Amino acid sequence: MSDRAWLQGMLDFEAGLARVTAPADAAAAIAAVCSADEYEIAALDAAAAATGTPVVPLLEALRARLPDDAREHLHRGATSQDVVDTAAMLVAHRVLGPLLDDLRGSSELCAELALAHRDTVLAGRTLLQQAVPTTFGLKAAGWMTALDDAIARLEAVRRERLAVQLGGPAGTADPAIAAALARELGLAEPILPWHTARGRVAELAGALGEASGVIAKPARDVVLLAQTEVAEVREGGDEPGRGGSSSMPHKRNPIAAITALAAARQAPGLVATLLSSMEQEHERAAGAWHAEWSPLRALLGTTGAAAPALRDCLVRLEVDPERMRANLAVDGDVGSAGALVDRALAAHAAR
Amino acid sequence: MSDRAWLQGMLDFEAGLARVTAPADAAAAIAAVCSADEYEIAALDAAAAATGTPVVPLLEALRARLPDDAREHLHRGATSQDVVDTAAMLVAHRVLGPLLDDLRGSSELCAELALAHRDTVLAGRTLLQQAVPTTFGLKAAGWMTALDDAIARLEAVRRERLAVQLGGPAGTADPAIAAALARELGLAEPILPWHTARGRVAELAGALGEASGVIAKPARDVVLLAQTEVAEVREGGDEPGRGGSSSMPHKRNPIAAITALAAARQAPGLVATLLSSMEQEHERAAGAWHAEWSPLRALLGTTGAAAPALRDCLVRLEVDPERMRANLAVDGDVGSAGALVDRALAAHAAR
Amino acid sequence: MSDRAWLQGMLDFEAGLARVTAPADAAAAIAAVCSADEYEIAALDAAAAATGTPVVPLLEALRARLPDDAREHLHRGATSQDVVDTAAMLVAHRVLGPLLDDLRGSSELCAELALAHRDTVLAGRTLLQQAVPTTFGLKAAGWMTALDDAIARLEAVRRERLAVQLGGPAGTADPAIAAALARELGLAEPILPWHTARGRVAELAGALGEASGVIAKPARDVVLLAQTEVAEVREGGDEPGRGGSSSMPHKRNPIAAITALAAARQAPGLVATLLSSMEQEHERAAGAWHAEWSPLRALLGTTGAAAPALRDCLVRLEVDPERMRANLAVDGDVGSAGALVDRALAAHAAR
Amino acid sequence: MSDRAWLQGMLDFEAGLARVTAPADAAAAIAAVCSADEYEIAALDAAAAATGTPVVPLLEALRARLPDDAREHLHRGATSQDVVDTAAMLVAHRVLGPLLDDLRGSSELCAELALAHRDTVLAGRTLLQQAVPTTFGLKAAGWMTALDDAIARLEAVRRERLAVQLGGPAGTADPAIAAALARELGLAEPILPWHTARGRVAELAGALGEASGVIAKPARDVVLLAQTEVAEVREGGDEPGRGGSSSMPHKRNPIAAITALAAARQAPGLVATLLSSMEQEHERAAGAWHAEWSPLRALLGTTGAAAPALRDCLVRLEVDPERMRANLAVDGDVGSAGALVDRALAAHAAR
Repeated sequence: MSDRAWLQGMLDFEAGLARVTAPADAAAAIAAVCSADEYEIAALDAAAAATGTPVVPLLEALRARLPDDAREHLHRGATSQDVVDTAAMLVAHRVLGPLLDDLRGSSELCAELALAHRDTVLAGRTLLQQAVPTTFGLKAAGWMTALDDAIARLEAVRRERLAVQLGGPAGTADPAIAAALARELGLAEPILPWHTARGRVAELAGALGEASGVIAKPARDVVLLAQTEVAEVREGGDEPGRGGSSSMPHKRNPIAAITALAAARQAPGLVATLLSSMEQEHERAAGAWHAEWSPLRALLGTTGAAAPALRDCLVRLEVDPERMRANLAVDGDVGSAGALVDRALAAHAAR
Repeated sequence: MSDRAWLQGMLDFEAGLARVTAPADAAAAIAAVCSADEYEIAALDAAAAATGTPVVPLLEALRARLPDDAREHLHRGATSQDVVDTAAMLVAHRVLGPLLDDLRGSSELCAELALAHRDTVLAGRTLLQQAVPTTFGLKAAGWMTALDDAIARLEAVRRERLAVQLGGPAGTADPAIAAALARELGLAEPILPWHTARGRVAELAGALGEASGVIAKPARDVVLLAQTEVAEVREGGDEPGRGGSSSMPHKRNPIAAITALAAARQAPGLVATLLSSMEQEHERAAGAWHAEWSPLRALLGTTGAAAPALRDCLVRLEVDPERMRANLAVDGDVGSAGALVDRALAAHAAR
Repeated sequence: MSDRAWLQGMLDFEAGLARVTAPADAAAAIAAVCSADEYEIAALDAAAAATGTPVVPLLEALRARLPDDAREHLHRGATSQDVVDTAAMLVAHRVLGPLLDDLRGSSELCAELALAHRDTVLAGRTLLQQAVPTTFGLKAAGWMTALDDAIARLEAVRRERLAVQLGGPAGTADPAIAAALARELGLAEPILPWHTARGRVAELAGALGEASGVIAKPARDVVLLAQTEVAEVREGGDEPGRGGSSSMPHKRNPIAAITALAAARQAPGLVATLLSSMEQEHERAAGAWHAEWSPLRALLGTTGAAAPALRDCLVRLEVDPERMRANLAVDGDVGSAGALVDRALAAHAAR
Repeated sequence: MSDRAWLQGMLDFEAGLARVTAPADAAAAIAAVCSADEYEIAALDAAAAATGTPVVPLLEALRARLPDDAREHLHRGATSQDVVDTAAMLVAHRVLGPLLDDLRGSSELCAELALAHRDTVLAGRTLLQQAVPTTFGLKAAGWMTALDDAIARLEAVRRERLAVQLGGPAGTADPAIAAALARELGLAEPILPWHTARGRVAELAGALGEASGVIAKPARDVVLLAQTEVAEVREGGDEPGRGGSSSMPHKRNPIAAITALAAARQAPGLVATLLSSMEQEHERAAGAWHAEWSPLRALLGTTGAAAPALRDCLVRLEVDPERMRANLAVDGDVGSAGALVDRALAAHAAR
């Protein structure tokens, strides 16, 4: 999510484009200068103000490093938005790797909880009032199934919707080159350039928004179950100071769950900004496109922070079945809870 | 989107549940009283305040109409949220029918424009400045492809994610009954009850948000192309007063496009509210669930208003190729525009 | 918040404008037909589609009812947006009356709780863990002070920012007439017509968003304090069925607090839509203005529902000091809690 | 807006608190270590994960640098949230300084445009159609008046609502110390600690949202007036490459206006997140508080980027009255446009 990652995405576009359009030696020369560590990001950013994107100063910096006969092969047929959009897709693709790992890890941990606590009875609580009994296994299975759905959606978006952008100034570039570049970069091939057709960004945003919401649910449950008066779960861990406070060292806060909640809650507003940015004028938007960059980055960042925080919370989770039983203030049986856990675990295993 | 439609959705749940759980004569008796026209919505709403949902007063009204021996079979094993969530899914399923028709109709109109204007040259405009030439056919093909993507997503959500809800008080009900009810009502069968796992709502919201954004794009282009100083398209129509104003009867406003824009722009904030509502406590949320109803309804309504407005705009659209040519202030060729149109039309036909 | 209220606002504009611009008998004739009950709203709405606002069909309906010599005096110098914007401000002004009453009523109830429980000790809870003791009086004083701030802000917006709109087709109308109309209608007088300067709407939205958030805070606390395992407060009331559920008649849900939460949570997304709509083109926006109507209405409606729900919650609130004491699991004194309550009550009394 | 600025805000809190609570030599020792440059931000951030805030590791780092007898006077009576909230208010206060300067500078530039073009006729455009004539002076006066309103609101929030936070673990700290600290730090004095009463943050957010929207309006007008086909204004400037593109060096894009639009459009979603965060539990929220930090920072940053961009746009603005006259396609006079400009300038001067 760093500036460096975005710069590297832009450089990967230029190197990839050269590989599919330039003679081999020019492509090699271009690839040789496409390492983000060679460039000073602050200077590029400062120069970006004059044109609205960092592409023009980046190309200048690249050209200054290239041998004369390679220069003409740089950025051939591309426009600034091709660079920035493809870089965004590359960054998203890369960020989704560990993010999906964390979601899958959380889902596995939920599966383990569901199995281990298949028959652990606790109060089912509706509107925060005890209603009828349920099992902690079914609660964890619900978390798992929702995570699995969000994972499936994010995987589909990553595979099908994160596409290369290569349209040139007005989106009229040869699609064969875009196809080759897509293969080169490991991104999907679009039917058309999508400079002002932002459904891809919207679907990415929607899937991240769903993932954030799905993360928030178990995090909220953990915070509630960890309340002093409920105390049915806690976040364990031996690190000194873990979960403490600057004024109350005796406290034991479920800080991983809280971190997940705090991160997840930032997603919906960012999704809204990205959806609002879909109304884009003609062949390149005057503002709505540029307005995507920060919220997309923030959304990848905040979902990307929520996911490991939930996983950490689940790794640490200590469940107290006796307290669950002791807190139970309502009668009744747990219905088909066990069968539902089995059903959910089977569906999980079949994914 | 009316109150009546929601009430009918709730009644369809009760009638369907009776068909899969009650003896035939009780089910028939229940079905006989499950017509929305028999109930006074205002009275149900007023009575809803005491419990937070209209389900309790609705059940009372139903029981009052039922023969004694049918009463015990009503609402068997269900909880209020089962009724409201299933009704929401039924309403969404029904609203998406005409909404998808309008989107498909718009896409077909774009396909016709793309074909008819495959080689109609106009200025490609980036940042609202003329950049290089493109074709109106490619512009329309871009609208079409984005619409097709949004249609595909909405269809998938409608088919796979609009599921029945039947979990009972704490979500522990027998899944076999939910499966039967899903078949009965034509909704998807969930793995588990999803009382506090709201990914389905999030995906529906995301798909509607994408559709709204995809509608806004051509509507914005039409408004810009219809500017007095550009005048490359206009919304036709002979109705007296169409596109007029209360103070300037000479004006000709692209009112269908504006209506589409106005409706589409209301979607992102509603999507954010629905995503924010995913953090739901335990087995039924205290507020977050109830907070979904109005925005979901408003989102279906506003996307459902944007879609026919765009279709109306496209039906009326009059294109002026001569003006497009006359406005063109930049040189250059249109690159692969024609081939891209062909490619997009082929992909459209193959969907 | 009804359709009728909006229609009456539009009619009040026309009647008021006639009173300040037309001869007395024409003004009287116009006023005589300006009662919302005379018009069929559904027909006006249907006819609105052709021009994008209900003003053109409304003026036709008005003219049809007017004597010949009054017709020319109707809507003199005004444009559609003048009617709709002024009606919106009138509706907001009227809705804010009872809304502010409910907020003030809630604040008074908090003041009573603060005084009555000035020294009632309960656990101060941070991150939902018991931290150190505080008092229920200080908690209630915190609710009160936040309500008082939100009230002060809403009152200021109502008094200073809800202004008449009268600019004519391009906002060049004589400001003296706007001034007279402002006095006539009891709205503020703007420096300039504000057709595309939407800071007034933004400030109204922001103040309603603040009020909603301020309502949500005590509602959330009540829901948490009313949890089965905490049970330090409950929502009382003798009505049969109050707080019950369709499947669990024994339950006692804090339904007023939940209703307040559900309503309040819908505000932020609506505020965002209204803020997004501030980017308005030239002398009248193509879509962004029209996009304001539904969210403004929804925001007034949802804040207007949250406010009485909180008041109802507070009226019903039963506090259990013994349970508060019994739940207390942490040592320490309550510091300056009593002095802070006194300070807050003094500030409240001085408002 | 940098990490360093936030760290310095936290250090200023600790130094200020020591000055009002500690013996002079301890206060001096504490002040001596309260310079952000002495601390490694990345290390503090990493350590923050264990407790959810950077305060615990910061205090450790401070204590390590303090003489033995000063240590006990550090952070006396404060809690982590006191540090973070006060730092946020200090940062906001500081950021609003240059931000308000830019808004005032823009307003002055609009005033100059209004005066210079008091009688420059151009088309009034409604729904992007030419309607009746108006003047460019009145357009600029409209921008100015909206800016002045937003400035007044932001100034009021800065003066009255940016308050010190000092409540201690449960908000029961002695208000006299908070009062002294407020004076020391130049912030407002609250009636009560506001750990979970977030109206201050909401009002700051609302005022920034309004400012962003008010910035977007003239920026949108400039982009539209600068269209190739309209060409009534342009953004001037001699810098090589200014407004250019990576593929079309001949272009002249209104890049400052576009930058302002792109920044301003990011505000509404962030405001929504901050308003959503007002529902905070008990004496410190589990997640909702932590969820404020990034969006508040992003909102200050994006409004703080939009404001100088608009000012830059207005400084560069070149107006072409002849083109305005030539484009005019509608008849009519400009009504009271001149008088309205005078009225607006008089009100501007009187602020």
